[in-house]
Amino acid sequence: MRKKKLSHQIVNETKDAVLLIEANLDDQTGEGLGYVMTQLLAAGAYDVYFTPIQMKKDRPAVKLSVLGNPLAKTALTKLILAETSTIGVRYQTWQRAIMQRHFETVQTPYGAVQLKVATYDDIEKKTPEFDDCAQLARKHQIPLMTVYQAALAAAGQLAKGE
Amino acid sequence: MRKKKLSHQIVNETKDAVLLIEANLDDQTGEGLGYVMTQLLAAGAYDVYFTPIQMKKDRPAVKLSVLGNPLAKTALTKLILAETSTIGVRYQTWQRAIMQRHFETVQTPYGAVQLKVATYDDIEKKTPEFDDCAQLARKHQIPLMTVYQAALAAAGQLAKGE
Amino acid sequence: MRKKKLSHQIVNETKDAVLLIEANLDDQTGEGLGYVMTQLLAAGAYDVYFTPIQMKKDRPAVKLSVLGNPLAKTALTKLILAETSTIGVRYQTWQRAIMQRHFETVQTPYGAVQLKVATYDDIEKKTPEFDDCAQLARKHQIPLMTVYQAALAAAGQLAKGE
Amino acid sequence: MRKKKLSHQIVNETKDAVLLIEANLDDQTGEGLGYVMTQLLAAGAYDVYFTPIQMKKDRPAVKLSVLGNPLAKTALTKLILAETSTIGVRYQTWQRAIMQRHFETVQTPYGAVQLKVATYDDIEKKTPEFDDCAQLARKHQIPLMTVYQAALAAAGQLAKGE
Amino acid sequence: MRKKKLSHQIVNETKDAVLLIEANLDDQTGEGLGYVMTQLLAAGAYDVYFTPIQMKKDRPAVKLSVLGNPLAKTALTKLILAETSTIGVRYQTWQRAIMQRHFETVQTPYGAVQLKVATYDDIEKKTPEFDDCAQLARKHQIPLMTVYQAALAAAGQLAKGE
Amino acid sequence: MRKKKLSHQIVNETKDAVLLIEANLDDQTGEGLGYVMTQLLAAGAYDVYFTPIQMKKDRPAVKLSVLGNPLAKTALTKLILAETSTIGVRYQTWQRAIMQRHFETVQTPYGAVQLKVATYDDIEKKTPEFDDCAQLARKHQIPLMTVYQAALAAAGQLAKGE
Repeated sequence: MRKKKLSHQIVNETKDAVLLIEANLDDQTGEGLGYVMTQLLAAGAYDVYFTPIQMKKDRPAVKLSVLGNPLAKTALTKLILAETSTIGVRYQTWQRAIMQRHFETVQTPYGAVQLKVATYDDIEKKTPEFDDCAQLARKHQIPLMTVYQAALAAAGQLAKGE
Repeated sequence: MRKKKLSHQIVNETKDAVLLIEANLDDQTGEGLGYVMTQLLAAGAYDVYFTPIQMKKDRPAVKLSVLGNPLAKTALTKLILAETSTIGVRYQTWQRAIMQRHFETVQTPYGAVQLKVATYDDIEKKTPEFDDCAQLARKHQIPLMTVYQAALAAAGQLAKGE
Repeated sequence: MRKKKLSHQIVNETKDAVLLIEANLDDQTGEGLGYVMTQLLAAGAYDVYFTPIQMKKDRPAVKLSVLGNPLAKTALTKLILAETSTIGVRYQTWQRAIMQRHFETVQTPYGAVQLKVATYDDIEKKTPEFDDCAQLARKHQIPLMTVYQAALAAAGQLAKGE
Repeated sequence: MRKKKLSHQIVNETKDAVLLIEANLDDQTGEGLGYVMTQLLAAGAYDVYFTPIQMKKDRPAVKLSVLGNPLAKTALTKLILAETSTIGVRYQTWQRAIMQRHFETVQTPYGAVQLKVATYDDIEKKTPEFDDCAQLARKHQIPLMTVYQAALAAAGQLAKGE
Repeated sequence: MRKKKLSHQIVNETKDAVLLIEANLDDQTGEGLGYVMTQLLAAGAYDVYFTPIQMKKDRPAVKLSVLGNPLAKTALTKLILAETSTIGVRYQTWQRAIMQRHFETVQTPYGAVQLKVATYDDIEKKTPEFDDCAQLARKHQIPLMTVYQAALAAAGQLAKGE
Repeated sequence: MRKKKLSHQIVNETKDAVLLIEANLDDQTGEGLGYVMTQLLAAGAYDVYFTPIQMKKDRPAVKLSVLGNPLAKTALTKLILAETSTIGVRYQTWQRAIMQRHFETVQTPYGAVQLKVATYDDIEKKTPEFDDCAQLARKHQIPLMTVYQAALAAAGQLAKGE
């Protein structure tokens, strides 16, 4: 697969707004939080992450953070209120600077791996797709690192040949 | 106690703004931070929490976060500047979506426990008040979990009978 | 399913030794660590967990901890050495005190849920199986907490009837 | 108060064994954990602390650690099994090296503060008792840091005069 | 060095805006992150800190936070995109309340130490400069705390003499 | 530099004991802890790391962990007691499984980079030395990742040619 053909796949978004919704949870179990992460990602959240925090009365707690489309504010808020123990969320809009991305494919001794190519002005980064590497490592029963390094080496060759 | 009777207790706030003040602290002890949390809550902060962070020069540190009424900005800021080692704070206003709350009481084999009932559109959650359960557990010298589960079970029965 | 019938399922282990293997990782990505957790659990580790730590040269890092059968020491060690970036692990044997467990089933309005019943001397705890509740919540498209509370209520009824 | 007079207060323990009991909890709330800490300290644990950890299935969790007298192993274990959701604990004995301690009193402009004097071979450290400082700060309505620095300064003066 | 002479060194900034840029990283090593912190501070960031977070697929991760001048937004953003694995950053402007600072010098038995004097309305805090204390501790091969306490004692004398 | 020539550099240690010393600190600043890490590493500790923990009275704290030679127990203990606020440490010996290591050198477009080659039974891992890559990145003013990927690619070529 060559670079040119993929040009129509380029994600042109380079600057936009992202919604961040947060809630502090000291009355929910970790089991419940793992379940909520899955629900929120299934509902279209861009990303969900947990931060360990410490609340009053010697309570270890977790801050739930959800990044999403500002248009999804009501849907994500209702999901958090329904599925967690919190009685409220706080939210804010952040600006973003995003690199343009497209994908290339390289051949390794273990099979094809996609490279994510991200560009921004004069910056270009090529990263092997983690899930491709993991799949090949499982298939060949070899360490993941072996596949990952092979993909990087192939990417390096590709760069030289261009 | 029935649901209707409690309607005047409903907290009608459902959407508002909340102030978040933060400071990174690498020159204060944990002892001092525990003291500051108490002072800030006594001064009317809605919530105070600590996040472990890592600062330059190999320093483990703590981010202090204070949620409060935007009108309390000056008072909370001065308290932080006076009682912590920081020479500055940063702050921002977040929007909030808050569920309406009222309280119901359920009977358990160990005594009465209040349920916090939180509603938002078609969402309704009933949570036993933790401090009620803790008090009964201490009084009867039984595990807290026993009281808490009994309160949850009573809430479940209540739901069925409605 | 009645309690008696399940008596042969009782796990009689109440005191034993468990192996703890640890490694500090500052040269591995989070992606890679998530993959390693899956591999280790598939290989029979009792439990795998990550602790955020802070290493020299301002490096945020992760401590990998693996609990397992002392007889699995070589297999788990080799898996860690093959799949992570560490060049060594440290290990130790801990003693354990374990509750006896068996399972009971309760009926909720949403379907059957297993209760894990754990006992130790005069202590008895009943906990709804999280995965059963999650499955019913997904099937009925209702909040997980609703199923969980119903299971606890059913457990309470069961207790009363005994 | 002079150093000699206090010699009978010296804690002579300098080397001994301490029990460490641990459990990973992903099915307990932060509220419940704060309660457990209080119960364990009341039951004679030397120290109780929480470490944020990350368990399987995307679950944020907490490692409970309890330091105590090896003779209290059964009592502390049963308390943890009764009051937390865990079905087992692991434990180990560690060796300790402990400094000898006695207390001295220094005068500050805000009142008397005890200094904890800890010695080990040629090492001597003097630390103002935090709770004394906190009490004077509350009494005089002044920042805690002001009292603490005054106590440290007085300790420094004391050192010079010896 | 006397207080008056230093008055021209006073930093008059008391209230301003600060830029906060953040990125979640689950595909970068801790080694790489330590390097990035150095690069960002060298490029003029006010502060850089790491927060341990937990992302999807059981991945332990790190949130990179960079505080800087809003005018440095493009430069800091490009440095993050070039030197980390992230394909995007989010950013926001926060308000700040900052104490006025000047420096005084005190003499200790181990040499001169600068005190940072920070004021805001009626609040005044004096803190020995950590790096001065560390340098003297290394030079005299004594514990850092000894120098720090001596500096505080000297500051107390200074205060008394004013 | 060829593999054979380096064989005398092989570190033959593959299994041994390591000392782990720990202390919980809630009365020390992050600044002080960063300083202590440097002192401990200079004194010969194998590794030093910090874990965020939560202690009683709402105190965020840090667990200091020091890995070292069991023969260095007294020296490391005294350094911790002298330079931190703790009045005691706990310690234990762990067993270790360590890979054999030697170094190879590969050429990249930016200069020579050492590869750490670690072996254990049939496992072999090659990792570019981070500090070599960082030095070349600074020299050529290019992203560190570019050098690191080039070193990995060269390692991949090397593997193919063997």
